[in-house]
Amino acid sequence: NYEPLDTAKFEYKWQWAYQEKFEKAGLMALLGSGFDPGATNMFTAYIAKHYFDEIHYLDIIDVNGGDHGYPFATNFNPEINIREVTAECRHWENGEFVTTPAMSLKQSFTCPDGVGSYNIYRMYHEELESLTKHFPSLKKAQFWMSFSDNYLKHLEVLGNVGMTGIEPVEYEGQQIVPIQFLKTLLPDPSTLGPRTKGKTCIGCVVRGIKDGKEKTVYLYNICDHQECYAEVQSQAISYTTGVPAMIGAKMMVEQKWMKAGVWNMEQLDPDPFMDDMNQHGLPWKVIEEPGYDLV
Amino acid sequence: NYEPLDTAKFEYKWQWAYQEKFEKAGLMALLGSGFDPGATNMFTAYIAKHYFDEIHYLDIIDVNGGDHGYPFATNFNPEINIREVTAECRHWENGEFVTTPAMSLKQSFTCPDGVGSYNIYRMYHEELESLTKHFPSLKKAQFWMSFSDNYLKHLEVLGNVGMTGIEPVEYEGQQIVPIQFLKTLLPDPSTLGPRTKGKTCIGCVVRGIKDGKEKTVYLYNICDHQECYAEVQSQAISYTTGVPAMIGAKMMVEQKWMKAGVWNMEQLDPDPFMDDMNQHGLPWKVIEEPGYDLV
Repeated sequence: NYEPLDTAKFEYKWQWAYQEKFEKAGLMALLGSGFDPGATNMFTAYIAKHYFDEIHYLDIIDVNGGDHGYPFATNFNPEINIREVTAECRHWENGEFVTTPAMSLKQSFTCPDGVGSYNIYRMYHEELESLTKHFPSLKKAQFWMSFSDNYLKHLEVLGNVGMTGIEPVEYEGQQIVPIQFLKTLLPDPSTLGPRTKGKTCIGCVVRGIKDGKEKTVYLYNICDHQECYAEVQSQAISYTTGVPAMIGAKMMVEQKWMKAGVWNMEQLDPDPFMDDMNQHGLPWKVIEEPGYDLV
Repeated sequence: NYEPLDTAKFEYKWQWAYQEKFEKAGLMALLGSGFDPGATNMFTAYIAKHYFDEIHYLDIIDVNGGDHGYPFATNFNPEINIREVTAECRHWENGEFVTTPAMSLKQSFTCPDGVGSYNIYRMYHEELESLTKHFPSLKKAQFWMSFSDNYLKHLEVLGNVGMTGIEPVEYEGQQIVPIQFLKTLLPDPSTLGPRTKGKTCIGCVVRGIKDGKEKTVYLYNICDHQECYAEVQSQAISYTTGVPAMIGAKMMVEQKWMKAGVWNMEQLDPDPFMDDMNQHGLPWKVIEEPGYDLV
């Protein structure tokens, strides 16, 4: 990670700056090969390659319908969760990133295959930076993530009382960082896996032009927390992040993608990657004209 | 306070047990001379004395419409607040106390004189114990307190994550009591006074029989947080608690109430106390047939 620690903004420019050095050294770097970014970049590239002459609108929708049964718990560092929901939103529109207040745009999204309906919030996510660069035909690109009312309520209250603070406060002569103390109270993340039920549903809705006609395509993967846990003793969040990382490495090792330089996923051929998603536990489906009424 | 520390149940029996000893020693003890209990016992006794032959239904309604402008803060030990809203409810009905789950009965109450409408929750409060003993004609007696949705949300979340726990947890080799640490994060209670706006409205709705006819009487005091602060540099919660304590002592010192034994307020003549309420900053009003539609 080449970002400065104290101003992490999920920017690729720190990594893109190494393009020439890597090329000269004959080395390859593959950027962001998780699920989102990663699989979502592949989904977009695959849709663009096979379904469109030109893509104009992109909505990446990340729904986690998992329920661990605790009132509040987190898989990750709660600091990261809080930064997610308090960071200003940026989306791509008419050639530039537009900034809006954090969590200020929300809509309901009904996942396919009975996964259910969830509130999704527009937010910034790092694949928007590379996808809008590599698909300059995009007029608008947005990222959406689901958050439950209960989750947001807990983050709001914990923020209100200062429990998410990262500055130490003095307590009985000791310096205590509130969010570190909070972590000791929350359920151990390692206990969440076996308890988490439900599914993730992450995909891309792309609108564009094919043979002069406008069309919309949705490509998505659904992943079941309990099935993941049964297979690898970890739930779908880890599974969906780890498998694409493995496939990305596999593409390089198998020489399907190997070339010197620093590359985002969508700069490489999506077909072998998408084939391997189907082979390695992350099967995906396409719905043409899904009929979503997204803002 | 004669209650055992670890099973505090706001019971008078520990104090009533001293009745004979105090009587023999020629000493007087006056129990519960705050606002509620205290003024509310006087309100009930005054209504019973002047408006009814027999009182049948009593609703004590404690509304605090104050707003300190913080997302969450508390005047008291948050432990006490939490015990209040998590304690099982008890109300008097047909000769016995009936237990119901905490905060399970809620209704909206519109205060007189433009103080506003608030959600009030039925809960146990200690004056119910003495009032139902000393007014055995009561068929039903209930206590209600207002809580804002925001306040309850904060208590719920803080409880959920364990921040209200009173058992120490180990953090970096030190034993830390979560609720004690929470206190260090919350606004200093002494800063609330000057910021708190709005009014308290505490009173008693009594239904009973006078001259063979059923009637309803509401007697209440409204107290303005900012006016209290201007007068005594403390807001209405302290003011409404402190002034009745002073008046109770005054009744004893002036020999209006002095007699050996242990007494609840309503066992003594309410008239001089109620006169002094009007003289000392806690004026009260009576509404006959207020038209409330209380459950």
